[in-house]
Amino acid sequence: MVTKNQIKLVVSLKQKKYRSQHGLFVVEGEKVVTELLRAGVKPFKVFVDESGRVEEFKEAELVSNKLLKEMSSLTHPNGVLGVFYMAEAGNTSIQDWVVVLDAVRDPGNLGTIIRLCDWFGISQLTCSQDTVDCYNPKVLQATMGSIARVNIAYVDLEEYLGKTNLPVYGAYMDGESVYSSDLAKKGILVMGNEANGISDAVGKFITKRISIPQFGASTTESLNVATATAILLNEIRRD
Amino acid sequence: MVTKNQIKLVVSLKQKKYRSQHGLFVVEGEKVVTELLRAGVKPFKVFVDESGRVEEFKEAELVSNKLLKEMSSLTHPNGVLGVFYMAEAGNTSIQDWVVVLDAVRDPGNLGTIIRLCDWFGISQLTCSQDTVDCYNPKVLQATMGSIARVNIAYVDLEEYLGKTNLPVYGAYMDGESVYSSDLAKKGILVMGNEANGISDAVGKFITKRISIPQFGASTTESLNVATATAILLNEIRRD
Repeated sequence: MVTKNQIKLVVSLKQKKYRSQHGLFVVEGEKVVTELLRAGVKPFKVFVDESGRVEEFKEAELVSNKLLKEMSSLTHPNGVLGVFYMAEAGNTSIQDWVVVLDAVRDPGNLGTIIRLCDWFGISQLTCSQDTVDCYNPKVLQATMGSIARVNIAYVDLEEYLGKTNLPVYGAYMDGESVYSSDLAKKGILVMGNEANGISDAVGKFITKRISIPQFGASTTESLNVATATAILLNEIRRD
Repeated sequence: MVTKNQIKLVVSLKQKKYRSQHGLFVVEGEKVVTELLRAGVKPFKVFVDESGRVEEFKEAELVSNKLLKEMSSLTHPNGVLGVFYMAEAGNTSIQDWVVVLDAVRDPGNLGTIIRLCDWFGISQLTCSQDTVDCYNPKVLQATMGSIARVNIAYVDLEEYLGKTNLPVYGAYMDGESVYSSDLAKKGILVMGNEANGISDAVGKFITKRISIPQFGASTTESLNVATATAILLNEIRRD
């Protein structure tokens, strides 16, 4: 039986402060819940309603449509809601490329970047404290389960970058062309805020400014941060 | 003086059928209106309210906040609303790469792809009839003015692809790696629907199936269509 306190807890997880306090986050949908379980993310509780196929989820709790709707962040809940434990701050010894985000604010962009890290086999994503919360429901909807395979940490970037011995590449409009840049075997790729790019405070730690060349008569000011990340990770991996 | 009929017309343009009927579309915001004017897109009428800087727009019509809000598609209108004539179906003689979209449905994805075409100097974007309307307000907000520099046509793709002599590349999950593919100097790049990829009917015209290699232990099913387009256009242009 689901208790009133459990419902209250799940509803509270819509707010970041309660997610942090309880170390729990919510995902919705059969597919992503299945992916997280398969990836070994520890479930706190999985709820399904009459439309969710309960036999697929061991120990899932059957609740009414009405209750699931109450707990859901979606306008149209889709039958399955999972509450999971957040990952511990992972191993930070760096054996490969790391992506660093400086104040990325759009949930869709962060979700896309997590998915790109997963695609390109980047296991560590390090975010400034003012980057959007990766357990935000809109981010989770955009990651399609990749959140289970990418370790995400929120840190003080100045402290973090001050300690590394790796080359630190930053994406700038006026950097050297990534086509002619000599990309190291491992390093850090810093991507900046949607409107302002990389902040001056973080910029001090950049050892190489890189950019994606523009073609034709375009006067487009910049690429979206997620599409720029896609292109740069492809450049890093294509060898 | 703005007339009641003009207001009614602008409001009607929120619907695709009236946009097509009148050959007009709406964009909002000082920046994008300025970009379209600068790019030579023919304005039908520009409206500004007290917060919009009217002196910047020759022959702009000053209206009240309340009227602008009535015409706007935004929750928070931003002072400037421009009504523009749609482009004529452009020159289709192909001198370069062309991007073709087969049933791309998400406005944000189409907007991002238009911006990418602009960035990479692709002047022709050809869409299936069931691709989301490029004059949809959500698409226009995501293009950031690139819509003025990319010619977009909606056609019967089977007819269109049946006529071309260019190589037709299609993005598939199981295609040949784009890294080892020999990309022609000019050609057609077909990108498919978000959920189903390239349809079988369009697939018949593909002369080369290409894909973006996946790294690490990822089980991500696919990349988002806009990020995949970013990576493939970069591969095409990087030489």
